[in-house]
Amino acid sequence: MIKVYNEESDQASVEKPKDPHLFILFGASGDLTKRLLMPAVYNLAFHEALPDHFNILGLAKDQMDDAGFRDKISKDLQEFGKRKFDQSLYEKLGPNLYYQQGDFDNPQLYEDLKKKIEEFDKKCNAKVVVTYYLAVSPAIFQMISNHLGEAGLSKLENRTTRLILEKPFGRDLKSALELNQSLHQHWAEDQIWRIDHYLGKETVQNLLAFRFGNGIFEPVWNRKYIDHVQITVAEEVGVEKRGDYYDKAGALRDMFQNHILQILSYLCMEAPGSFSANAIRNCKISVLESITPLTEEEVAKQTVRGQYGPGKVKDKDAIAYRDEENVDKQSNTETFCAFKIFVDNWRWAGVPFYIRTGKHLKEKVGKVIIHFKAAPKRLFKIPKTDEVLTNELRFFLQPKQAITLLLKAKIPGTKMSLQPVKMHFDYSESFDTQEGGTSTGYEILLYDAMMNDPTLFSRSDLVERAWEITQPILDHWSKNPPADFPNYASGSWGPDAAYKLIENDGHKWRD
Amino acid sequence: MIKVYNEESDQASVEKPKDPHLFILFGASGDLTKRLLMPAVYNLAFHEALPDHFNILGLAKDQMDDAGFRDKISKDLQEFGKRKFDQSLYEKLGPNLYYQQGDFDNPQLYEDLKKKIEEFDKKCNAKVVVTYYLAVSPAIFQMISNHLGEAGLSKLENRTTRLILEKPFGRDLKSALELNQSLHQHWAEDQIWRIDHYLGKETVQNLLAFRFGNGIFEPVWNRKYIDHVQITVAEEVGVEKRGDYYDKAGALRDMFQNHILQILSYLCMEAPGSFSANAIRNCKISVLESITPLTEEEVAKQTVRGQYGPGKVKDKDAIAYRDEENVDKQSNTETFCAFKIFVDNWRWAGVPFYIRTGKHLKEKVGKVIIHFKAAPKRLFKIPKTDEVLTNELRFFLQPKQAITLLLKAKIPGTKMSLQPVKMHFDYSESFDTQEGGTSTGYEILLYDAMMNDPTLFSRSDLVERAWEITQPILDHWSKNPPADFPNYASGSWGPDAAYKLIENDGHKWRD
Repeated sequence: MIKVYNEESDQASVEKPKDPHLFILFGASGDLTKRLLMPAVYNLAFHEALPDHFNILGLAKDQMDDAGFRDKISKDLQEFGKRKFDQSLYEKLGPNLYYQQGDFDNPQLYEDLKKKIEEFDKKCNAKVVVTYYLAVSPAIFQMISNHLGEAGLSKLENRTTRLILEKPFGRDLKSALELNQSLHQHWAEDQIWRIDHYLGKETVQNLLAFRFGNGIFEPVWNRKYIDHVQITVAEEVGVEKRGDYYDKAGALRDMFQNHILQILSYLCMEAPGSFSANAIRNCKISVLESITPLTEEEVAKQTVRGQYGPGKVKDKDAIAYRDEENVDKQSNTETFCAFKIFVDNWRWAGVPFYIRTGKHLKEKVGKVIIHFKAAPKRLFKIPKTDEVLTNELRFFLQPKQAITLLLKAKIPGTKMSLQPVKMHFDYSESFDTQEGGTSTGYEILLYDAMMNDPTLFSRSDLVERAWEITQPILDHWSKNPPADFPNYASGSWGPDAAYKLIENDGHKWRD
Repeated sequence: MIKVYNEESDQASVEKPKDPHLFILFGASGDLTKRLLMPAVYNLAFHEALPDHFNILGLAKDQMDDAGFRDKISKDLQEFGKRKFDQSLYEKLGPNLYYQQGDFDNPQLYEDLKKKIEEFDKKCNAKVVVTYYLAVSPAIFQMISNHLGEAGLSKLENRTTRLILEKPFGRDLKSALELNQSLHQHWAEDQIWRIDHYLGKETVQNLLAFRFGNGIFEPVWNRKYIDHVQITVAEEVGVEKRGDYYDKAGALRDMFQNHILQILSYLCMEAPGSFSANAIRNCKISVLESITPLTEEEVAKQTVRGQYGPGKVKDKDAIAYRDEENVDKQSNTETFCAFKIFVDNWRWAGVPFYIRTGKHLKEKVGKVIIHFKAAPKRLFKIPKTDEVLTNELRFFLQPKQAITLLLKAKIPGTKMSLQPVKMHFDYSESFDTQEGGTSTGYEILLYDAMMNDPTLFSRSDLVERAWEITQPILDHWSKNPPADFPNYASGSWGPDAAYKLIENDGHKWRD
C-alpha cells in the first residue's frame, strides 16, 4: 500500500501526516462510505498512516448518535472490509468517529458545523485541517458547496480547508464548466480536490519513472521513431450493480473522458520540471491542448461504439447489456468505444493513437503498446511468420504491472533470419509490491490529501479540456443513434468496426 | 552447430555444399589436424553437411600409406573427438581420406600434387575445388605458397583453388606486410582465406542482428547517447601447453590485434549494405581506419600490461606464468593487457572504449557493456546505493550468449526513488542453440569455405590495419620492459593499473 523507504536502512516505513485532521463526511451512511472509504481509513490505521489527531464527523439524514455510528461502522468493516477485523485496533480508531444527523440543504446544519469544528480544535489543541468529503450524488455537489460557502466554512481564517469531490465531474462540457464556475465562487482552485484516481499513483509513477529515469528511451520517444500506439483498457465485468448510473453515462463518459485521456497524457507529456502535482498537471494540460477535438466527419471515421450482446466471458455465460438490471431494454448506451486520435504537437504529430475500452471483453487488462518504426529489412531474410522488423514496448498497467520489450534476434543457422524474442520485467518479481487484495484504492487518496499531494486529483483546466475533447463525440453520437446495437458478443474483443478502424491503416490490435 | 532453417516447415536441416571438394592438408600428422580439423570433418559428416564428393589428401613427412592414414585418423578421432565414435559413419568417411608422404620444401611433391588433383577429378567426374589447408607453422607459409605458385598450382585453369592459412598472420606490421606481399605474387586476394575465427559466426551475427534488426537501438548507438564502452575478454586458463608459442607472442598479439579489434569493429561499424562478407569487411575496415594509432605518450598513459603471478583460479591453486612449461623464467611477456582507445569518426568521437583481456583471470567471459549517458536526475530521489541514472546494455558473447538491459524502475512507495532492474534475454532459452560440447569450432570454418562464405576469414587490408594499430604499442613496450612483473595474482581481475585506467575517468569495471 503506502510505503516510504528509509534510505539508510532500506526498510519500508510509513510517514505519518503531521497536521491534526477533521474529515467532514457528507453521505456517511452511503454505499461509498461503507464499502470503500471506511475500510480505507481502517487500513490506514492498521499501517499507522493516520495523523496523531484524526477525526471523522459523519453527516447523513439517518437518526444516529456517535455510539450508533461507531457501532454501524464496526459492523460495516466486518462485512465489507477486506482486511481481517481487529477489535483492539478498532478500539483506537472508533472513538475518533463522530456523527451528526442533518439535512444537507438546511442552513442550520452548516451553522452547527462551525461549532463542531471549534470543538475539534479544542480536542486537538490546535486548528484542525478541515476536509469536506462529498461522498454523495454529483447532483448535490453545488448545493452543498454553496451552503458551505455561504456559511463561511469554505474559507476559515488561519485554517486549511479542502473540498473533495467524487467522480464524475460533470456529464458534458457545459455541466463541467457550470460546476467549476459554481465551486470557484466559494473555493480557490487549490482547495478543490477532484478525484481523478484511476491508474493509482504507483502505476502512474512507474510510467513516468520508466520514461524519465532511463536515458535510452527518451531519444526514441517521438514521431521520428514511433509508428503508432495502442491503448487497451478492457474489463471482463459488465455493469454489475451500476446499471442505473452506467446507462446514463456510457463508456465514453465513464472511461474515455477521464481514464483514457489520463493514460494518454502521461504517455505523451514532456518531462516535467519536478514531480510535483502542478508540474505534472502543467505537462498534462499541454498534451490535452494538443489534441484537436474531432470534426463531425472525423467522429464518423475515427470513432467506433459498441454494446455487448450475450456471450461467454471466461467460460461463463454472460447476458446482454440490455438485459442487465436497471438498464433500459432499448438502451443505446455504448459499453465499448474505440478511437483513433492524434496529439498534434512537435513530439507526436502524425502518430496515430488507437484506443479501445469496454466491458464484457475477453480479458481484464490495461496496457499500452508502443510500436516503433521498422528497421530496414534489406539485410535480413524474414521468415513468413514474421511481419516486419518492428520493436514493441509493452506496458502492462493493470492488473499486473510489467514491461516487455519485443526485439528481433537471429535464428541460429547459416541464414540471417530473424525471430521475435522478449525481454521482460515484472514489477512483482523485483519488488515486494502491493499487499494482495486488502486495499480499496481509497487509502492513497485520503493519505495524499492529508499529505497535501494532489497528484491523483484533477485541476479545473484538465477536466474542462477533457470535456472539450469528448464533447464533439457525445454530440455526434447522440445525433446519430446506433443502428446495430448490440454489436459485439460478450467475451469478444468488441465490434468488427473496431478491428477495421486499425486494420484499414495496416495495423493490428495486439490481443 | 550448422543449421539452416527451412522457412516452410521451420525444421532445421543442413544445406550441403554442391561442388566436389579436395582438401590438400599440409601438416596432416600434426596436432591441429588430429585435435581439431579431423574431429570437425567427422562432425560435418555426422550432420550430412559434407558435399557428395569430399576428399582429403593429407601431406606430411611421416611414412604412411592411405590405409595407415585412415587407421591413424580413426584412432585420433576416438582419442580426441568430442563426439562418440561411430564405426559405420567412419566407414563412409574413411575411404575419402588419402595420404601422401613428402617434404614440403621439395618441388617434386608439388609436381606429384598436380597428378593427384587430376586423379580426383576422374574419381569425382568433375573438376574438384582444391583447397590447400596450411595446418603448419606460420614460419613455412611463404615457402609452401611459393612452391604451390611456382608449380602452377595456385591458379589452375577452370578450377577454383583456395589457400587457407592458420593463425597467427604475421607477428608485427612488417612481417604481415611481407607475408601478404609474398602471397599476392601467386594468389588473388579472394583466394587467400586467413582464419580470423574467434567469436564464431553465430555470435557475430547475433550482434549484427541485434544492432540492425531492431529499430530502437540504432538511434542511440552513437556518441550523443553512449558514455563509454567496456570490453572484457577474460580467460580462466593459463598458457596450458602453448608456452612455447605464447611466450613469443603475448596477450597483445594473441588477443588484441585480432580478436579484440574484431569485436570492436562489429560493435562500431555502420550498417552494411548487405551481410555479404565483403560488405561487412568494408564496414570493418572503415572502423579500424578511424582508430588513430597511439603516440608514445598515449601508449604510456592509455595502455596497461600485466603478467600473472601465483594465486587461485576458481579455488584451484594456479602457478605463476614464469613457472609455466616452456616459458622463460625471466619472461617479460604480458598475459594481460588493458587499453583505452577511441574510434575517431562521426559516430564515436570522444567515446572511450575500455578494453581488457588476459589469462588466469577470475572468470571465463567475453562481454561488452554499453554504458549510456545518464538521464537528468533532478526528478528523482536517488538512493545512496544507486550511483547515477544510467542504462547499460550488456552483451554476453561467450561462453553464454545473452543480452541484458539494465533499467531504472521506481521503488514502490510514496517517494520517487529508483532502483536498477534487469530485462534479460538468453539465446539458449529462446532457441535450441549449439549442441553442447561436440563442436571443435572448426566445423563452421571448413563448411563456410566450401560454401564460399569468407565472413570468418580476414582480408589483407584488415590484417594490415590491425597491425598498424598494434605496432606502436609493441614498440613502446619492447623499448620499455616492465619493472613489476608478475603484477597480478592468478584469479584476480588483473593488475591495479587496469583499475586506475578506468577509475581515473570516473568509471568502474563491471566485474
